[in-house]
Amino acid sequence: MIKAGIIGGAGYTGIELVRLLLMHPEVEISVVTSRRYKGKLISDVNPHLEPFIELEYEDVDTKEIADRTDIVFLAVPHGSAMDYVPQLRARGARVIDLSADYRLKKDEYERIYKRQHKDNDKETRKSVYGLTELHPEVADADLIANPGCYPTGAILAVAPLVKGNEGGGRVKQVIFDSKSGISGAGAEPSAKSHFPNLAENIVPYEVTAHRHVAEMRMELSVKVSFTPHVIPSIRGILTTAHVFIEESGAQTKPLQGLRGRGAEPHSDEIEETYKRFYEGKRFIRLRKGLPSLSSVRGTNFCDIGFKREEKSDRIVVISAIDNLVKGGSGQAIQNMNLMFGMDEREGLWFPGLVP
Amino acid sequence: MIKAGIIGGAGYTGIELVRLLLMHPEVEISVVTSRRYKGKLISDVNPHLEPFIELEYEDVDTKEIADRTDIVFLAVPHGSAMDYVPQLRARGARVIDLSADYRLKKDEYERIYKRQHKDNDKETRKSVYGLTELHPEVADADLIANPGCYPTGAILAVAPLVKGNEGGGRVKQVIFDSKSGISGAGAEPSAKSHFPNLAENIVPYEVTAHRHVAEMRMELSVKVSFTPHVIPSIRGILTTAHVFIEESGAQTKPLQGLRGRGAEPHSDEIEETYKRFYEGKRFIRLRKGLPSLSSVRGTNFCDIGFKREEKSDRIVVISAIDNLVKGGSGQAIQNMNLMFGMDEREGLWFPGLVP
Amino acid sequence: MIKAGIIGGAGYTGIELVRLLLMHPEVEISVVTSRRYKGKLISDVNPHLEPFIELEYEDVDTKEIADRTDIVFLAVPHGSAMDYVPQLRARGARVIDLSADYRLKKDEYERIYKRQHKDNDKETRKSVYGLTELHPEVADADLIANPGCYPTGAILAVAPLVKGNEGGGRVKQVIFDSKSGISGAGAEPSAKSHFPNLAENIVPYEVTAHRHVAEMRMELSVKVSFTPHVIPSIRGILTTAHVFIEESGAQTKPLQGLRGRGAEPHSDEIEETYKRFYEGKRFIRLRKGLPSLSSVRGTNFCDIGFKREEKSDRIVVISAIDNLVKGGSGQAIQNMNLMFGMDEREGLWFPGLVP
Amino acid sequence: MIKAGIIGGAGYTGIELVRLLLMHPEVEISVVTSRRYKGKLISDVNPHLEPFIELEYEDVDTKEIADRTDIVFLAVPHGSAMDYVPQLRARGARVIDLSADYRLKKDEYERIYKRQHKDNDKETRKSVYGLTELHPEVADADLIANPGCYPTGAILAVAPLVKGNEGGGRVKQVIFDSKSGISGAGAEPSAKSHFPNLAENIVPYEVTAHRHVAEMRMELSVKVSFTPHVIPSIRGILTTAHVFIEESGAQTKPLQGLRGRGAEPHSDEIEETYKRFYEGKRFIRLRKGLPSLSSVRGTNFCDIGFKREEKSDRIVVISAIDNLVKGGSGQAIQNMNLMFGMDEREGLWFPGLVP
Repeated sequence: MIKAGIIGGAGYTGIELVRLLLMHPEVEISVVTSRRYKGKLISDVNPHLEPFIELEYEDVDTKEIADRTDIVFLAVPHGSAMDYVPQLRARGARVIDLSADYRLKKDEYERIYKRQHKDNDKETRKSVYGLTELHPEVADADLIANPGCYPTGAILAVAPLVKGNEGGGRVKQVIFDSKSGISGAGAEPSAKSHFPNLAENIVPYEVTAHRHVAEMRMELSVKVSFTPHVIPSIRGILTTAHVFIEESGAQTKPLQGLRGRGAEPHSDEIEETYKRFYEGKRFIRLRKGLPSLSSVRGTNFCDIGFKREEKSDRIVVISAIDNLVKGGSGQAIQNMNLMFGMDEREGLWFPGLVP
Repeated sequence: MIKAGIIGGAGYTGIELVRLLLMHPEVEISVVTSRRYKGKLISDVNPHLEPFIELEYEDVDTKEIADRTDIVFLAVPHGSAMDYVPQLRARGARVIDLSADYRLKKDEYERIYKRQHKDNDKETRKSVYGLTELHPEVADADLIANPGCYPTGAILAVAPLVKGNEGGGRVKQVIFDSKSGISGAGAEPSAKSHFPNLAENIVPYEVTAHRHVAEMRMELSVKVSFTPHVIPSIRGILTTAHVFIEESGAQTKPLQGLRGRGAEPHSDEIEETYKRFYEGKRFIRLRKGLPSLSSVRGTNFCDIGFKREEKSDRIVVISAIDNLVKGGSGQAIQNMNLMFGMDEREGLWFPGLVP
Repeated sequence: MIKAGIIGGAGYTGIELVRLLLMHPEVEISVVTSRRYKGKLISDVNPHLEPFIELEYEDVDTKEIADRTDIVFLAVPHGSAMDYVPQLRARGARVIDLSADYRLKKDEYERIYKRQHKDNDKETRKSVYGLTELHPEVADADLIANPGCYPTGAILAVAPLVKGNEGGGRVKQVIFDSKSGISGAGAEPSAKSHFPNLAENIVPYEVTAHRHVAEMRMELSVKVSFTPHVIPSIRGILTTAHVFIEESGAQTKPLQGLRGRGAEPHSDEIEETYKRFYEGKRFIRLRKGLPSLSSVRGTNFCDIGFKREEKSDRIVVISAIDNLVKGGSGQAIQNMNLMFGMDEREGLWFPGLVP
Repeated sequence: MIKAGIIGGAGYTGIELVRLLLMHPEVEISVVTSRRYKGKLISDVNPHLEPFIELEYEDVDTKEIADRTDIVFLAVPHGSAMDYVPQLRARGARVIDLSADYRLKKDEYERIYKRQHKDNDKETRKSVYGLTELHPEVADADLIANPGCYPTGAILAVAPLVKGNEGGGRVKQVIFDSKSGISGAGAEPSAKSHFPNLAENIVPYEVTAHRHVAEMRMELSVKVSFTPHVIPSIRGILTTAHVFIEESGAQTKPLQGLRGRGAEPHSDEIEETYKRFYEGKRFIRLRKGLPSLSSVRGTNFCDIGFKREEKSDRIVVISAIDNLVKGGSGQAIQNMNLMFGMDEREGLWFPGLVP
């Protein structure tokens, strides 16, 4: 049994890790920390976990945690993870960090998150960006930077179009317009999550400057715009990707599978590109129609569908994920599975809660 | 034009008063206070009120407010109203208090609200319980204690059965099981109003000991139980009243209109009792079927329907109100209308927002 | 592996059976029928089930189904099950019927459901009411009448008070006021389930005459009233049970554990009664506070909490279930587990989807 | 008093016309038709309208309706309006058509709506596109084609950038990503509006081929893409317009007010452009922040806000409307007001239902 520790186990990401790991046949949760609730039974704070876990929340002691675990999940706020990682790594712990601290290059991180990065040890800083479907090297990593929820759905939606070719480059620009359930804003009540403010509403925010765009640009290397909204839903992110491709006459080598007749790539060729790119990726489900949130509720799947606009250079790609599972804790466990040589599906292979 | 002041104009009750008074043809809002937002434009804090009001929030100055207004609405927390009322009354202001401070007898208030009542002036304390349909004396009042949201819907649901007879007393017991939209909990974010906690849920609370039961008992004088819940809805209170009547063989004089054949009152007689009791009450709508929240959304109506259980001593009466209108600010304006000799409908006579 | 068949596999109950059985380690789904969708891939009709099931919907052939399965679940409308059961039983099939057809005595069924019961074979008609916690004899049954969703939550809420004593009878009367998610109304769109009609609303229906009251009376043998409502939620039933107990001076032998000081049973004694009654029942969670729907979402748990009203003969008991799991398909599987000598938790032992 | 008739008064658009016209001081509703409900009291079918209207639904008789009214609103399905308009116009009736039948040029209509246009009378066909803020000529029209709900929010969002200059043309391309409440899909229950399908979800549809795009192109004359979604909300359309402007070096004459320093137009200049363009338009509210649906709930306002992306050619403009009011029946009344020489605000000047 793999012994897992969770630092920051009272927020939505942490508690979802607990919920999912409890169903994992190869994992035993050995420690969960929370400064706020230390000494309290986890199942008293989270009654849905009774009687599955008998542990109490503990205070954080990185040394002890490294000794008592085979893998440590960090579910702490951005800026805190970099305090724990060097200590944990120094004691040989393998770490999956669900914060943003190890996702970007140091200078990019500091520019975007407007704080200094305190971890200067090049060795321990060596992280793999844990978007499993694009980075098989997670299997060999000791430190994984688990992707942000929005980037997960956005990047997976268009990666085959952007990267699934030899020459690269027929995609000219992508506009990601994302709609997220409010659980992404965390367990702490706020004006944004106040029921009368969100019900019967949809709220755009940080429409030109959300920090997650940096991850999308890092992974996709094309012109990317990103605009998020919160919808009156608990879970889920639906990303509508408006993908613009080079128009006819372009000199660039066309996407393999996007050759098309004339300038327009045909739907069956696009489908082929997606199938080839995601072959063997068990958590990607290519849909004939357009996906919506319900099919992925509570699961680690990323559902993808697309529609080619007629007489146009636009392809609309829709992806749907559960922000707390594939967009967070589930993907972290998927990474853990690969790090420990297991099938990526272990503990995560179940259908969504429909209806 | 009647000049109206609102003390506590930033909570849901206060801001709903502003919204409704802005549509009242005979009223001009002259002052709105808020300690938190003083100096800010009301329409900046509440963008839905732009461009209808150009006032800024002011700090509270009871002397000045008494001078600048014909009527003062108090939309402050329980326990604060009793600070303002004596000062306002001393300066001759007429007051409609939407808090609980003047609803109950002094000793009952102190027992239920667990605080001392500071207003000892018998004269100024003389308030009328502003459940307009039952208390025509509001027309002559200088101080009105506007009813609680739950009591409004509950009392109106069963008053005809309890009070609509000469001898009184065929109703033995009433169990009120109420379901409220979350706006009743106020504008301040809390765990209770946190979207992920309330959506896809219904939450019972204070199931045996909610303070509002005191108003119901005061007005109905029968055995009353009250159990509230919050539902994933912004507005509205649906009250399911389980009314038990004396069974056959009882010596009590039967309800006029509830004579029945044998011991069981018949539905048409019950209907007759309701019609007679609420004759001329324009905001009571007796429904053939069972009411629900949507028809009263945004309105001052109280919709009532009932169903007589066969071979049983139970009548189920359902009432539906908008908690912020008939259950609060609308009823306050209805009271004001009568205090100033106007038709009770003035400024409140419009249909609900359906769908 | 147990081979399971589902007749009526396209409604919410049927498809939830598929979802849950797919996660059951000892079960293999061998046949799922649907007249409407025969020949179509189950996962095409229900995209959340991809890629977990590769079967197509089949037409119903009871003979063949009996041969191909060890257990048959009937998830067909009331009135249809009685067509299948005799044929299936005649071929030796063990059957769990999720309809109402075998829950009540013949004459009671015919009175309540207003149709003739066609199954007159006394032998095959011998069913066990599958409220597992109260009927351990399900383990030996060949035909189980799976309880209705409302009765499951209602009966479990009060059974310890009603039945958990020797002499019986201190509970005088129970009023069940239930609030259900709309999935209980089925997968077929209707005015009731039309989003603009249900959102921001709560709708009472059949407030004195819902058919499920017959099951409650059958199991509890006390004076029972039942009033259902639908709330703007997909899943879940919260039942508020207003329980009235005999007042002081009553001659009846007091409930064991409800002796109390004077006439009033004390909360710790009530708690003791519940604990004793449900000892070893793994899907009953007794809560310190009041339960709500979120903790049971997607699970087979029935959460129960209560509050004793001071100076009163009323106890408010709240139960929360997922109507499609404990109130339907989950309970059916729990019954199957016991019929096949397994732990009742097999395939059903996971925490709820929170948030 | 203006006598108004409504043909098709049982759908959401029709019934919203009734609701709004009942509050209009200068209008009397003289006839409302519905084939389905003819002979029934309007307030029996729509209990929220009791006791405001005493009319019964009538069958359609265009001759009689023309005689009994000063203005006729057509709230019938696309394809039906063209049956009524010629008859009504022949009898001299002034008509506001809320269907799509008279919005587009004949050939464009036939191409998009895939049906023949039966009205060939050039005279009677002469309609004005009733997007009031852009078409002051509605004041002189006898036939108004009331805009679609999506086009209303979309066109108003970007018109100042596209048209608010002399030379025209700095806007290169617009991607409209719209999110609509489900009431836009009508009063008839469907799989799309089935509560369990929509709650906790967001559903993209016709992502490249929604018919409303034709109106947007007609009015804006720039490259337009349009992708709609339905959200779990009753009312409202939030449109996120991703506007791309010509990059530096372009030879086109810059937008007046978009001159900018260097190539990038500055936010205050954009704001200036909007203010100038919508000066005197009372139902346009330019917001400092980003609008959301709640402020416009139940109103005829179109709230607009925008954000300029740094170092980019993208401006994100957000518009919010109530799809049934500004996106339908309210805008129709606004048009009527102007046709009859009244202030455009008559009967429509009230704040939104918040919270």
